[in-house]
Amino acid sequence: MGKSVEIICIGNELLIGKILNTNAQWLARRITALGLGVKRITVVSDDTSEISSITGEALQRTPDFIITTGGLGPTFDDKTLQGIAEALNIPLQVHEEALKMIEKKYQRYVDDGVVRERIELTRPRIKMGTLPKGAIVLPNPVGTAPGVILKQNNTTLVILPGVPPEMKGIFDKSVMPILKEVSRGVTFYETSMSITGIMESDIASIIDKAMRDNPQVYIKSHPHGSEGVPHLELHFSTTAQNSNIAKKNVSRALLQTTELIQAKGGKTKSIKPDSKA
Amino acid sequence: MGKSVEIICIGNELLIGKILNTNAQWLARRITALGLGVKRITVVSDDTSEISSITGEALQRTPDFIITTGGLGPTFDDKTLQGIAEALNIPLQVHEEALKMIEKKYQRYVDDGVVRERIELTRPRIKMGTLPKGAIVLPNPVGTAPGVILKQNNTTLVILPGVPPEMKGIFDKSVMPILKEVSRGVTFYETSMSITGIMESDIASIIDKAMRDNPQVYIKSHPHGSEGVPHLELHFSTTAQNSNIAKKNVSRALLQTTELIQAKGGKTKSIKPDSKA
Repeated sequence: MGKSVEIICIGNELLIGKILNTNAQWLARRITALGLGVKRITVVSDDTSEISSITGEALQRTPDFIITTGGLGPTFDDKTLQGIAEALNIPLQVHEEALKMIEKKYQRYVDDGVVRERIELTRPRIKMGTLPKGAIVLPNPVGTAPGVILKQNNTTLVILPGVPPEMKGIFDKSVMPILKEVSRGVTFYETSMSITGIMESDIASIIDKAMRDNPQVYIKSHPHGSEGVPHLELHFSTTAQNSNIAKKNVSRALLQTTELIQAKGGKTKSIKPDSKA
Repeated sequence: MGKSVEIICIGNELLIGKILNTNAQWLARRITALGLGVKRITVVSDDTSEISSITGEALQRTPDFIITTGGLGPTFDDKTLQGIAEALNIPLQVHEEALKMIEKKYQRYVDDGVVRERIELTRPRIKMGTLPKGAIVLPNPVGTAPGVILKQNNTTLVILPGVPPEMKGIFDKSVMPILKEVSRGVTFYETSMSITGIMESDIASIIDKAMRDNPQVYIKSHPHGSEGVPHLELHFSTTAQNSNIAKKNVSRALLQTTELIQAKGGKTKSIKPDSKA
């Protein structure tokens, strides 16, 4: 039912574990809340052929959207547009609108008086406005490099910077409205309950039964204690045509599961009775 | 030079953004510090065919190691071993040693008096000891499900649970010694400096020059401020045959970059003069 999304995060700093991939979680949460489904998240290095490969692989799986983060800045290792252009076999060219956006940013920095020298459109700055042919630019409300949209057959590529406030700024301003439009009211709904006094291995058959009886609801157990001192979180989630149906489906599964667990001597407690992603 | 690793994280909770992928960062940091290189990190859902697909894809890229996290527990949605067995075309069978480990865990839980009923080896519990044929088991010092090692041509698959303390416990006890052995003293070294008073777009040419002159060192700029109020982190890293060479290479690149930045009016400050991952 829901539209599908692949997330691709580009950056050596993620592969050496220098930073946590908070961008992927933020995007996954937002996209899920908007009623779309994230099918895969991939992290690759700042390498043109790696970026080109993963773009080609993801396109073959024909998701509705591919959202990338990272590699749009002015330095030599910002290679995302080059890699994507290669994968799509499209030339890169200076995009007049993008270049104007960038020029304006630097003009503002001069006017603010923070930077004293005259700012010229040097090669690294022009690079941020050199986009695959046919690109649509998304203004960057926070930083300099604009976001980019490209269409390839039935997949829309959304190319965002890696600096979190810039990525979030462009997403909320320009990408969220597009995803909202295509998801047509489809809603994700989730809730969790905390369970004590029963082991995860004893709950397996209960989840099996509840999921058979509630096929629209996904139930997943997350052990927080250990099997010896059992403390579990059971997470219920669904995606439905609207929020009423979603809530009704989750509530029914929750009620049934609660009864089955209590019958086995477990104790249940609602964690987030009404949370939405 | 360094051995290559792919990380595969399995779990719907990562794709809906319910949790941050701290496992991937922890592993990436550990693996990098041990002198190996993480080439790709992929997150897929708790779905047998997804797990089988990504395993097959990763094997085709012939990394030295594939390390997976998640999906080893007792519930129905723990499908990692099934997916990997499918990809490798190997049958699943009860592994006597693994089953004994699991039985012992439950016996201990009973002896500790925390759980009062007699613990039987129910189907969900036997499931944790049902492994692809030819598997080597890695004891789980924290939880119940053991880790698994499988060899396929020149790739070693290391299959770890998703619960962080269990994953870390098995890694440090059983996986680290193997990686240390194969990396034969190869060392990763990194250091960072903080730069103010110069824009990222103005530093691009300096990084270009320093990387041309120091081909073993990777230099990456991370903008922390904005282009208007520039505040950058420059991260220097290298992997070398031993730590002396690694430090020497990074120091030389650091010195040259510092001089070039100061000549352009930028201010530099060492952030972590001697940090190791």
